[in-house]
Amino acid sequence: AAMRTVEVVGLGVVVLSLSVELLGWFFSRRRSGRATNKVLFFPSEVALEHQSCMNSCFCSLPHGVETSFSRLLRCVLSACSTLDLCVFSFSNMDLSRAVLVLHSRGVTIRVLTDKDYSAITGSQIGVLRKAGICVRCDVSSVHMHHKFAVVDGHVLITGSLNWTLTAVQSNMENVIITEEPDLVQPFIKEFHRLWVHNDPARYLHSSDANTATSC
Amino acid sequence: AAMRTVEVVGLGVVVLSLSVELLGWFFSRRRSGRATNKVLFFPSEVALEHQSCMNSCFCSLPHGVETSFSRLLRCVLSACSTLDLCVFSFSNMDLSRAVLVLHSRGVTIRVLTDKDYSAITGSQIGVLRKAGICVRCDVSSVHMHHKFAVVDGHVLITGSLNWTLTAVQSNMENVIITEEPDLVQPFIKEFHRLWVHNDPARYLHSSDANTATSC
Repeated sequence: AAMRTVEVVGLGVVVLSLSVELLGWFFSRRRSGRATNKVLFFPSEVALEHQSCMNSCFCSLPHGVETSFSRLLRCVLSACSTLDLCVFSFSNMDLSRAVLVLHSRGVTIRVLTDKDYSAITGSQIGVLRKAGICVRCDVSSVHMHHKFAVVDGHVLITGSLNWTLTAVQSNMENVIITEEPDLVQPFIKEFHRLWVHNDPARYLHSSDANTATSC
Repeated sequence: AAMRTVEVVGLGVVVLSLSVELLGWFFSRRRSGRATNKVLFFPSEVALEHQSCMNSCFCSLPHGVETSFSRLLRCVLSACSTLDLCVFSFSNMDLSRAVLVLHSRGVTIRVLTDKDYSAITGSQIGVLRKAGICVRCDVSSVHMHHKFAVVDGHVLITGSLNWTLTAVQSNMENVIITEEPDLVQPFIKEFHRLWVHNDPARYLHSSDANTATSC
């Protein structure tokens, strides 16, 4: 009878631990599933409403209301240790200010951008460089057309949206924010490849040396 | 003793069924995790190698080797019932041929594109329209800058890549292929919203009527 009791108790413990594990897994899956994948569309309805009141408040930042742009900005500003930015065109002053704030907080920032678009009127690339942020220009392709960022090595921001004012306020655009490793890891690898590939040291003796800048 | 045996057998069955469920979940999770998220980068190394031999074969399609472009093309061609395409610029002839093949197979195709870029030299939008494919032009924003497609209502193709030859062969670009519902569903919803919003019937009495086309 004692043997039986031990057996029953043993089996009970196994069932209990399995159930707990199963429940834990189920909830962590649901929670992470909700947290890791977000899609933002531009221009968001709320941003458009706000835009119409801009004449009175003179500010392009949404205040009080959640918009696609405020969510994007919050995600960028959540960086604690690193921000790797790989963007074709960067002229949005609010996003530029956010990057400068991160830089002043000690976040390690690397910016990879298109050689032609880094020099156009309104580009914030010069501002970032002057602040001491690492910037490299892609010199190998017709256009470095990516628009992605990796926050703290585990959050990917990517989509159709360039970091410009037109993109945020006037175009139909999308941005995905995800922590899905299958998506994040390839972008981290690609950033590393492009970063090394566009190291100005590699172009010291070539005609491309002027277009790439060391940091 | 009979009661005890029933108890032990009962518990055994519970443990067994829980274990099977747990294992099934684990494997389905691993499998789906692998199948649902792919990232393609352009120009791919292999495509570049192939490009150099193009002088002898006179064909822009990769043959024999797997490239980012062949993977993209295969995903588009996998459509069995529907293809919803929302793309800023569409001039790539191989992708155009793929869409025409799907149309001839009876796949329901809807194309939403930018009003300005649909009319530029080399645009395939006119070709698709002539073939009888449903095309609508976005008339509400500065640019309809999306570059996404939804295959059979459950596979999302999105990224920085326009459906042009330059994008595929010359630019640094990315494409995500995912079946993750958290990502796919918002794009399906947005496509529906834009499709209805750009229904030419809505513009019958406005000056925009010419730029949108019914089907």
